[in-house]
Amino acid sequence: MSLIKRSLKRVMKNSAVIAATCLAMMATSVTAAEKVYRLKLAETWGPNFPIFGDATKNMAAMAEKMSNGRLQIRIDSSNKHKAPLGVFDMVKSGQYDMGHSGSYYWKGKVPNTLYFTSMPFGMTPAEQYAWFYHGGGMELMEQVYSPHNLMSFPGGNTDIQMGGWFQKEINSVEDLQGLKMRIPGFAGEILAELGAKPTNIAPGELYTSLERRTIDALEWVGPSLDLRMGFHKIAPYYYTGWHEPGSELQFLVNKRKWESLPEDLQEILRVAMRTAAYDMYTQATHESGKNWSTIQSEYPDVKVKDFPAEVMVALKEANDRLLAKHAEKDALAKEIQASQANYLDQVRSWTDISHRAYLNSQAK
Amino acid sequence: MSLIKRSLKRVMKNSAVIAATCLAMMATSVTAAEKVYRLKLAETWGPNFPIFGDATKNMAAMAEKMSNGRLQIRIDSSNKHKAPLGVFDMVKSGQYDMGHSGSYYWKGKVPNTLYFTSMPFGMTPAEQYAWFYHGGGMELMEQVYSPHNLMSFPGGNTDIQMGGWFQKEINSVEDLQGLKMRIPGFAGEILAELGAKPTNIAPGELYTSLERRTIDALEWVGPSLDLRMGFHKIAPYYYTGWHEPGSELQFLVNKRKWESLPEDLQEILRVAMRTAAYDMYTQATHESGKNWSTIQSEYPDVKVKDFPAEVMVALKEANDRLLAKHAEKDALAKEIQASQANYLDQVRSWTDISHRAYLNSQAK
Repeated sequence: MSLIKRSLKRVMKNSAVIAATCLAMMATSVTAAEKVYRLKLAETWGPNFPIFGDATKNMAAMAEKMSNGRLQIRIDSSNKHKAPLGVFDMVKSGQYDMGHSGSYYWKGKVPNTLYFTSMPFGMTPAEQYAWFYHGGGMELMEQVYSPHNLMSFPGGNTDIQMGGWFQKEINSVEDLQGLKMRIPGFAGEILAELGAKPTNIAPGELYTSLERRTIDALEWVGPSLDLRMGFHKIAPYYYTGWHEPGSELQFLVNKRKWESLPEDLQEILRVAMRTAAYDMYTQATHESGKNWSTIQSEYPDVKVKDFPAEVMVALKEANDRLLAKHAEKDALAKEIQASQANYLDQVRSWTDISHRAYLNSQAK
Repeated sequence: MSLIKRSLKRVMKNSAVIAATCLAMMATSVTAAEKVYRLKLAETWGPNFPIFGDATKNMAAMAEKMSNGRLQIRIDSSNKHKAPLGVFDMVKSGQYDMGHSGSYYWKGKVPNTLYFTSMPFGMTPAEQYAWFYHGGGMELMEQVYSPHNLMSFPGGNTDIQMGGWFQKEINSVEDLQGLKMRIPGFAGEILAELGAKPTNIAPGELYTSLERRTIDALEWVGPSLDLRMGFHKIAPYYYTGWHEPGSELQFLVNKRKWESLPEDLQEILRVAMRTAAYDMYTQATHESGKNWSTIQSEYPDVKVKDFPAEVMVALKEANDRLLAKHAEKDALAKEIQASQANYLDQVRSWTDISHRAYLNSQAK
């Protein structure tokens, strides 16, 4: 082979190398900008659960659109993963990357998770968002969840929950003696302090239990979700709320997974979760108004009742006794309780001269 | 030149072409993914205006982070563009791509813009968000703004505004006769119907005017922004609100500019605006609580007063008369009024058994 021929061959080989390098570089460039991150989310709810399930779908849709498809979140409902109350553990272990649930479901496992959904006699939704984002709430929630390789974010508010559907009027603390009521969690503990018999019953059996007087009363959420359960057809009294004045669901994220995301996708996920939470509160307000109008017009005999002052005082005292017990055993519980109590004092003085004064002035 | 030499030259030239093409293709690929869109936003407020100005900064920061720098929003305050009440026109014409202002500022120009901030005796913030996003509010706002090449979005809520600072008590409708009060806009028109003398005074002169009794009363916002104005030092009565029960600012976007953005950046902008609006409501709640606590502890003699029922009835009747006049002249005004009135009826029945009942049960 002549020198020239060898040169020619070398140059042609170089061309091929350049072209190949070029393609490889372009592929890398595309990969960096277009790499798809796929996250799996386990929700505590069944498929197409109203409002709660809309919040996860809304969050995932925003994240996907904003990331131009680079962040894909698959949602598994409880019929898929079979562990509605296993969400904490599944996200902690990395079996799922994200969860949608309620913080207070984990109080048996990590007692201080109790404080990040809604507390009896506590903050309304707007007050609680102010506490989360400006009053130290997010930082305290991080202290509770971080040791479990978890991040927790507000996940949607149901609005103030109603006190529940009752077969008989409650006129005194004595009327609570032996009262069989479906009311789970911390609120159930408070009622038990006053002699009631809190029970837990599967959702599918609630209607029949209340109709046949197996239970005397139950609480569910509020008109937004109560309407479809039909309780207004079989119980004459709908009591106003005290035990969950601003129930906030939660998004859980596996911390190691979070750290593996590029910064822009972290921000997209953070904002999508925050917006979906606020959006759910807006939707809950809407559905509550719509459904309560329906109940009022179709069942005008349903009576809205406030618990008598005497009962509210007794419930509040029982609540304070139980909280004091938690605080004695746990310095962080004490700190969270103090943060919430001080913040409530501050913000409620405003809510009273704004919302309470205005709503009273407009009442018919 | 020999054939081989010519071949060699051609091949070498090809190599160069391949390399150049490669670079050009990579540049195109980078451009598509990394093209930076720069938007200019004019806000009605001065630089670093508290809460309102935080909303625009928050929105721009979210958009920039979520887009990994591809969406850059420059914010010009009124000291830069010199036209605080020219924002509508500047965004309409494309001189600015976006604006942050208040819809009711444009009622002299486009009367139906009045309805998208807050209406006297109207909805609270949560109720109004529900109307915007689930009750037809966004669609009606689009009908009003679209003919002006504009899109309008909720831009942050101040919470319920206070009725204002008064030098004397208002015990009857007669006490409003000749009352000189700084209260602009539609609320001023209502007071004028009852014989008051609404005036407008530059913000920098408000304190002195109230102190020297050039005016008898004024309304500003609420504790969140009133504290720094110092009115609590010179006026003994702080009246609760009726005229702006959920003032929502607005983001304006030039429609042609919006259409020139890729879909992912449109979604990023939409979500950043919605979140910044909700976030401002949360911040306003926080600042109101904090500042009202400060006022209460430093000036314990400030008296919070409700207007007497007689005054509220007269104000409401004047409001209804003025609204009826608007509706007579304009079919769309009539449609918007009906939408708001019907929605308020529905949602307030819920707010009454939730927020009003709960806040009353907890009042000290």
